[in-house]
Amino acid sequence: MRTILCATAAMLIAASGATAQEPAGPVKFVRYQLDGRTSYGVLEGERIREIEGDLFGAHRPTDRWIDLAAVTLLPPTDAKKVIAVGLNYRSHLGERPVAAYPGLFAKYPTSLVGSGADIVAPKDAANLHYEGEMVLVIGRTCSDVTESEAPACIFGITAGNDVSERDWQAADLQWFRAKSSDTFGPVGPAIARGLDPDNVLVETRVNGEVRQHERTSDLIFGTATIVSYVSRYVTLEPGDLIFTGTPQQTRALQSGDVVEVEVEGVGVLRNTVRRR
Amino acid sequence: MRTILCATAAMLIAASGATAQEPAGPVKFVRYQLDGRTSYGVLEGERIREIEGDLFGAHRPTDRWIDLAAVTLLPPTDAKKVIAVGLNYRSHLGERPVAAYPGLFAKYPTSLVGSGADIVAPKDAANLHYEGEMVLVIGRTCSDVTESEAPACIFGITAGNDVSERDWQAADLQWFRAKSSDTFGPVGPAIARGLDPDNVLVETRVNGEVRQHERTSDLIFGTATIVSYVSRYVTLEPGDLIFTGTPQQTRALQSGDVVEVEVEGVGVLRNTVRRR
Repeated sequence: MRTILCATAAMLIAASGATAQEPAGPVKFVRYQLDGRTSYGVLEGERIREIEGDLFGAHRPTDRWIDLAAVTLLPPTDAKKVIAVGLNYRSHLGERPVAAYPGLFAKYPTSLVGSGADIVAPKDAANLHYEGEMVLVIGRTCSDVTESEAPACIFGITAGNDVSERDWQAADLQWFRAKSSDTFGPVGPAIARGLDPDNVLVETRVNGEVRQHERTSDLIFGTATIVSYVSRYVTLEPGDLIFTGTPQQTRALQSGDVVEVEVEGVGVLRNTVRRR
Repeated sequence: MRTILCATAAMLIAASGATAQEPAGPVKFVRYQLDGRTSYGVLEGERIREIEGDLFGAHRPTDRWIDLAAVTLLPPTDAKKVIAVGLNYRSHLGERPVAAYPGLFAKYPTSLVGSGADIVAPKDAANLHYEGEMVLVIGRTCSDVTESEAPACIFGITAGNDVSERDWQAADLQWFRAKSSDTFGPVGPAIARGLDPDNVLVETRVNGEVRQHERTSDLIFGTATIVSYVSRYVTLEPGDLIFTGTPQQTRALQSGDVVEVEVEGVGVLRNTVRRR
């Protein structure tokens, strides 16, 4: 734990985005809706301080404070692209070999929902699984960057649930509806900025029972490798999200199940499963 | 040919979006950049009449006319989602069986380029193929629509080139960089509104030589089936694009090759291949 705290402090000093107005320690940004208006704010305990400006550029805190309980949390960015890495923990591979390079697939922005929203199973979905993951939030346009340049592309991290319909994943031409159906991409509750993305704990709980529990230090392809590799082919843009893979094994979800994905330093992403 | 013209006329009458200001026959919309400003316009011969308002909602022609030759054509929508159907012509299947339902995959908006732009092969791309296709342009938000409701979701059609790196397509976990690398999605030159999407000719030429030539009446899954099926899982939004599949066989492209995809009534999408 000491190592993590040291890394965090080092990252904070390195993070040039930190300003005098921002408190010490990881800063948490939330995106939320209140009275039909979408805003960004800094989460401080159970209160949100609204910010104005561009989250990924110049922004400043306002004097507007809102209770967290009063707002509807949204996916923490209005992502243009949602990218996901498959088979990125040895504990998830089973009999499959370790790949020579990251295995990538796409999710659509329409699959994203915030913490508190329902995961709605399509009528014909019979085998829905959770996949708790640490998710990278891209902060700037990045194309063909090296691994040493890659960390500067990462604005922060959040928690994600790469909801997957396993029967479709096995049967279909590509992982399309299996991974990209509406509500199959819960993300949030906040973006934490100032943590080491390669050393946080990811834990998934279903109805309070721990189902996945592993640190991102076990990622086969670390975050700099992922970002650099993706950027060789696909230009990354501010707000893009990269799901970095799920550890260990998963099981089927039932209607009414409450799935929590907690990423250390980020908070708890909580969603309930229901049928359409 | 008479059948097509009749169908076109019937579609035009049915298309409630047609207004008194719009000329008879298929209307062609282009999206373009001029002096750093992005606009939509109606293409009439070699001239563009700028429109103002929402292409998918209320819009009206202005008095500004621009020469087509003076503008840079952009992908005809600022698409949030690019969806593609695989294996949708019997002539493309080879030994593969006809599927029971559409095989779908994703391309990213960052893969889109307009007519006239280059297809830029990533450094390590060795086996780049063209795939000429008819592309649907979605005009309204559609979720879980029936096949009879589906045509109302379609605003118009355009031409697309689903550029594919065949070695990556065969080797990778999913069709990610194989289909979604930057510039792998040329689309345009225009959106044609008022045609029957299930009966237009798709022709691909490389350096003037015809390589693909087949009508969309040969689609295994027609456009209403595709839109209805997708919408059961993924909410469609105005501007979304659906590549409907490529006919016949494809061959490798070389640097300098000029690829033209012509969709009857739409025009010619023209792009040149170069290495990064």
